[in-house]
Amino acid sequence: MATAFARNQWYVTAYAGEVGRDLLGRTVLGEPIVLYRTEEDGSVVALSDRCVHRRFPLSASRLDGDRIVCGYHGFTYDTSGACVYVPGQQRIPRTARVTAYPVAEIDSLVWVWIGDPQLADEKLIPRAPHLADPEMVSVRGMEPIDCDYGLLVDNLLDLSHETYLHGGYIGTPEVAETPISTEVDEAAGVVRVSRHMMDAACPPFYSRSTGIEGRITRLQDIEYFAPCLYLLHSRIMPVGRTEPVFRTEITYAITPAGPGKVYDFWAVSRDFAREDDEVTKFLHDFNHTVVMQDVDALNLLQKALDGEPAGYQELSINIDTGGLAARRILARLAAA
Amino acid sequence: MATAFARNQWYVTAYAGEVGRDLLGRTVLGEPIVLYRTEEDGSVVALSDRCVHRRFPLSASRLDGDRIVCGYHGFTYDTSGACVYVPGQQRIPRTARVTAYPVAEIDSLVWVWIGDPQLADEKLIPRAPHLADPEMVSVRGMEPIDCDYGLLVDNLLDLSHETYLHGGYIGTPEVAETPISTEVDEAAGVVRVSRHMMDAACPPFYSRSTGIEGRITRLQDIEYFAPCLYLLHSRIMPVGRTEPVFRTEITYAITPAGPGKVYDFWAVSRDFAREDDEVTKFLHDFNHTVVMQDVDALNLLQKALDGEPAGYQELSINIDTGGLAARRILARLAAA
Amino acid sequence: MATAFARNQWYVTAYAGEVGRDLLGRTVLGEPIVLYRTEEDGSVVALSDRCVHRRFPLSASRLDGDRIVCGYHGFTYDTSGACVYVPGQQRIPRTARVTAYPVAEIDSLVWVWIGDPQLADEKLIPRAPHLADPEMVSVRGMEPIDCDYGLLVDNLLDLSHETYLHGGYIGTPEVAETPISTEVDEAAGVVRVSRHMMDAACPPFYSRSTGIEGRITRLQDIEYFAPCLYLLHSRIMPVGRTEPVFRTEITYAITPAGPGKVYDFWAVSRDFAREDDEVTKFLHDFNHTVVMQDVDALNLLQKALDGEPAGYQELSINIDTGGLAARRILARLAAA
Repeated sequence: MATAFARNQWYVTAYAGEVGRDLLGRTVLGEPIVLYRTEEDGSVVALSDRCVHRRFPLSASRLDGDRIVCGYHGFTYDTSGACVYVPGQQRIPRTARVTAYPVAEIDSLVWVWIGDPQLADEKLIPRAPHLADPEMVSVRGMEPIDCDYGLLVDNLLDLSHETYLHGGYIGTPEVAETPISTEVDEAAGVVRVSRHMMDAACPPFYSRSTGIEGRITRLQDIEYFAPCLYLLHSRIMPVGRTEPVFRTEITYAITPAGPGKVYDFWAVSRDFAREDDEVTKFLHDFNHTVVMQDVDALNLLQKALDGEPAGYQELSINIDTGGLAARRILARLAAA
Repeated sequence: MATAFARNQWYVTAYAGEVGRDLLGRTVLGEPIVLYRTEEDGSVVALSDRCVHRRFPLSASRLDGDRIVCGYHGFTYDTSGACVYVPGQQRIPRTARVTAYPVAEIDSLVWVWIGDPQLADEKLIPRAPHLADPEMVSVRGMEPIDCDYGLLVDNLLDLSHETYLHGGYIGTPEVAETPISTEVDEAAGVVRVSRHMMDAACPPFYSRSTGIEGRITRLQDIEYFAPCLYLLHSRIMPVGRTEPVFRTEITYAITPAGPGKVYDFWAVSRDFAREDDEVTKFLHDFNHTVVMQDVDALNLLQKALDGEPAGYQELSINIDTGGLAARRILARLAAA
Repeated sequence: MATAFARNQWYVTAYAGEVGRDLLGRTVLGEPIVLYRTEEDGSVVALSDRCVHRRFPLSASRLDGDRIVCGYHGFTYDTSGACVYVPGQQRIPRTARVTAYPVAEIDSLVWVWIGDPQLADEKLIPRAPHLADPEMVSVRGMEPIDCDYGLLVDNLLDLSHETYLHGGYIGTPEVAETPISTEVDEAAGVVRVSRHMMDAACPPFYSRSTGIEGRITRLQDIEYFAPCLYLLHSRIMPVGRTEPVFRTEITYAITPAGPGKVYDFWAVSRDFAREDDEVTKFLHDFNHTVVMQDVDALNLLQKALDGEPAGYQELSINIDTGGLAARRILARLAAA
């Protein structure tokens, strides 16, 4: 029941701030990739992380200017992936070249195109402008999870789990109780799930960051741009009032690393208390704790599923409407 | 060469004292089970440890009264396994139900029936009354072993290994040297192995618990009730005398957890020095050490077997008569 | 792409100094072997490391004189592998016997023959006389690596990697730059690779052991006796001079333990500064560091290869001539 991988898609492979002059190895859809930033113009290079000679990982190598020198026998590649030096001889074999992946650095995310490079169109990249918006303050992190990426898609598209898995953090009874409305744009590959709680308890995540003491109106509007980008537009305000509105944008990028492995990129952006470093630190640490609750649960769930006999059953209910739509879209993208 | 599992059988799944208001997860014959005790009448509940929704382990969840609330999305089950709450909607799907296993709490052991519940007859449960006998004092423990459960059956049915693996603890030269007599009741699935040593050295296990200083008459009478319960009736007395007789009942429950995994439940019950806490502590710690010698040996043996080519040979001799009979019975029970 | 094993060959299984009265377990070509030295005449015994009874590893057992007593049930074997005692009965089954491997102790190495013992001819053993030469001082060690043994053969037959993987230790730019000459004796199964650097930087390995301060003439002459023995005859002298010549013999034995596992035996022998314990200690520690650089790289490379799709490509160049010849010879020996 592993979720198939969709090729010919853009995937978030790193945060812009993670890529520099130290080689960074990541694996996307099972493809090992090494990332670095050039001295020349600071652009991000993404090459296949396997030397053509004996498949040594280039991420365990070193840079010489903007060229990457294999740490085993010194095969050297330029930013286009062309081999420009081999040891012990002048002639460089015509086929000595590693794949260079199309890269786009947008909204502080490094997107890499997996598939036919001719089809790599930056206009296909869904946007998360709040991550680079000077009017917003963001905290972020990334956790690898040992699970099928479909489990993380399921997790994020059904927030009723906040009540149980994240009770006392971001969940309150109203999340599980309030029905959702779901809107699916099959053609565009977008799923929207909304849950509007008009009179809800305020969980610590919001009470401690906004200072609100009583009950709140809490609006959750999810947009999932399959396969990779997930946005949760959150708006809260004191119950019965229309202002002040506290806007929080919660971003996830769901990047399949390989079979049974996924990168869980997460960020929380806010438009309030922007100068307050304590709130910034609180939101980072608190959300990290919440993410780790998901990480632990999904690692455990995957182990449970690995022990299930083939063809095990699930039982879906209304809350799963968004997740099931996402699965259909992912299956279509993977088959394409 | 994995030993097949016998379904439609009772298996010891926990000690009575292990089951309470904290959820306990165990796996029997590959079936994940969650155990707890009700507030209402203290009876033991054994449910399938997988939520019907997305297969999350219920043992990682929590109790609400006598109901179990899934830690992921809040699906809630009563003691019969029926789902009584799902998030976000009133209607509960008709098929929302987890398996409830037949349970019997007898002789301080929690037995669970694996197989067709219609066939679960408590009268089939073999007895170990000394474990709950007020005239006896028992110490006990449980160790999981990473080996085929057949290796533990082999181990216990041939005690000649006491001389070598447990020399200086429970073994003396006489154990390996003394021939055994074996009696097999194929129909009832019972194997009896006796070794009567009329004049033997007294190993520390007995000299330190009974105070006997010289040689002993040592009677070992094994009863194995396939597949799960093993009793070693031990009687010792000073050599050449008929009293005092020191009676020790050594109990094992051999519960296959899954392929290559077994729970080794062990207990030592005695009718002497019953008030002597030092003897109680000595027998617990000393027998734990002995059990760990078996655990280490069986973990090592399984690793060795895993590296053997298919169809590797064994060579059996007289001491293996009981073990081979047990294998035949287990094969018949598994085929039934 | 695992390199096939060549049977009917001698393999270094231990250093002579490793074998004594403690049982030593090693695995060669997937065959578990237990080694010990007799009290009677100090000769090395190599037996199959699995008791005939239940396959318990004899290396987890103990010696009784020159006999080995199984730690589980006491089956006892003499140095020929014949079973001479079983518990509980007088009659010893006719087939109770473990394989005794042909052993030769030569040049301080313990060679074991894997294959048909009738074909075990000590004259087939390639020699490394410097290891036992009183005119030479040797340091040595052994590291297990979790990789196909072919990766270690590749590694050693192409020393251009010294420049990159061992830069600052034994590598200088001249190693990678200087062309090699290769000589293959297919019939004898010997590959010779020479690299003569007439004017090269002196790496710390040599400058600190010989005291040479300037540039050197550095002669590397490899002899690989497939499948197991690798000799690197190293000669260095101050550039432009013909003496003093510093002679270093670097020995490797490449012994496949099993699929994806290899023993990397390494030794460094020298004919200079023989009394200087500081040089001895330096060469041991420094070469151990160099070996660990290879170990880390090969563990990493194997993991990378394990994740590659079947039929992945390599690209070979001139430096690989020796390694490719070795692969051809190994394939022929394995097919024989």
